[in-house]
Amino acid sequence: METFFSFLEKRVDDCSSLLCVGLDPHVSDLNEPSPASVLDFCLDLIKQTAPYAAAFKPNAAFFEVFGAEGWTVLKQVIEAIDEESKRQGSLIPVVLDAKRGDIASTAEAYAKSAFESLGAHCITLSPYLGKDSIEPFIQDPEKGVFLLCKTSNPGSGDLQDIKLEDGDLLYEHVAKLAQTWNAKNNIGLVVGATHIEAMNRVRASAPDLWFLTPGVGAQGGELEAALKAGLRKDGKGMLIPISRGISRAENPKVVAAEIRDQILNIKRSLKQ
Amino acid sequence: METFFSFLEKRVDDCSSLLCVGLDPHVSDLNEPSPASVLDFCLDLIKQTAPYAAAFKPNAAFFEVFGAEGWTVLKQVIEAIDEESKRQGSLIPVVLDAKRGDIASTAEAYAKSAFESLGAHCITLSPYLGKDSIEPFIQDPEKGVFLLCKTSNPGSGDLQDIKLEDGDLLYEHVAKLAQTWNAKNNIGLVVGATHIEAMNRVRASAPDLWFLTPGVGAQGGELEAALKAGLRKDGKGMLIPISRGISRAENPKVVAAEIRDQILNIKRSLKQ
Repeated sequence: METFFSFLEKRVDDCSSLLCVGLDPHVSDLNEPSPASVLDFCLDLIKQTAPYAAAFKPNAAFFEVFGAEGWTVLKQVIEAIDEESKRQGSLIPVVLDAKRGDIASTAEAYAKSAFESLGAHCITLSPYLGKDSIEPFIQDPEKGVFLLCKTSNPGSGDLQDIKLEDGDLLYEHVAKLAQTWNAKNNIGLVVGATHIEAMNRVRASAPDLWFLTPGVGAQGGELEAALKAGLRKDGKGMLIPISRGISRAENPKVVAAEIRDQILNIKRSLKQ
Repeated sequence: METFFSFLEKRVDDCSSLLCVGLDPHVSDLNEPSPASVLDFCLDLIKQTAPYAAAFKPNAAFFEVFGAEGWTVLKQVIEAIDEESKRQGSLIPVVLDAKRGDIASTAEAYAKSAFESLGAHCITLSPYLGKDSIEPFIQDPEKGVFLLCKTSNPGSGDLQDIKLEDGDLLYEHVAKLAQTWNAKNNIGLVVGATHIEAMNRVRASAPDLWFLTPGVGAQGGELEAALKAGLRKDGKGMLIPISRGISRAENPKVVAAEIRDQILNIKRSLKQ
């Protein structure tokens, strides 16, 4: 059965890359604080980095802040990625970083918004409301979700590191729940590169799931340590999102190519 | 110091009501699935129920599903509530039900979207990412947040009811954390009316916080039991959001007035 992750794995093979290019048009990175500038920022980044991108990850917040015009731009950005996929001859999946999470009837509307209105292939979700808040997003195996498990930010420990009565930490419990919910093989986990020990534990607990691993670069996470902790035995299973590290570079195309190559080199050295 | 909750308490006094009218334009409740129909649905509900509304709670998902046009409508709806406030001679706060939660730089954009672009007074947030994901929303005491604590849906137990090593349940831990984060008195909690025992525990743990208590009516929660468990000693501290119970009624105005009166009657009987 084709699933979101089988599409992703095909793309990973096609471009030999685990790089996920983050489209985070922070106002401070724009030529001017306007929706047009958001669009320019994203289209340029897409064009420059597409050959090295296993996926693109637009972050909804930076579009939403521009209201209706921002949502128009977000849709245009996803359409542009589809066009670029055609030029590359290989579908580049779009992970909408939105971290939604609501009760079932509302979650249905969010799922429709992400997958139908916007045309994303995957979305990030919070697990806090439990299984019924996730279900509307995982009905179609060709659409995927990354559930927040252990996030990259300093405050992630406030809830996620709490020790449970049974000895697990909360994020380990989430990793286990995700596997029981994963009947259609379209659930992955967000596991930050800033917490290597946590990544070791989650990989031990969930040997087969894909991870989305933010925090490399701007947030201080180290690429080699993250790959060592998080790669699956098949050398896949991790998407490495990089946003500012590429968008703020003098030459985003060159930096994206370098990161792709760094990942390949590290994978090779880990194999030995 | 004026805070979001001092504005809310003034409105509660002005209208003698704890009713929060939910603006949930489910596609199935619309005359036709269009942004224009969403706007009509909301404007009619606002006009009919404003005299009895301590607050309005538009749910972002049902606007977002219409993309850019949906966001235009959401902004128009919040503007219409502001206009209605002027007619009522009393500010009716707008709680944007969005359940966002992201790392700090992204949370800043979401906060700007909710409070500046849209003009909401308060937002619902997930606690899963910890304190730094909440901070951008609580900088201005006149803007408030309701943190998800114990939600009304069946799956809420998957994470929220987990027992921690120290004996607390996870939602109790969230209630305690919220109080340590509440330096500016602008944090409340979402505690569903479908879990009365949980509400008793959260009220015992957080005697002073405001609760947003979904689940009365359509989701099966009972109003009297909820008020008994959740009201503060001053007879405030609970907002009772009702959406479909009002919007699907033959006469929403009459039903909103009845719910306001029911709440008053129950409060009176509880006092005795």
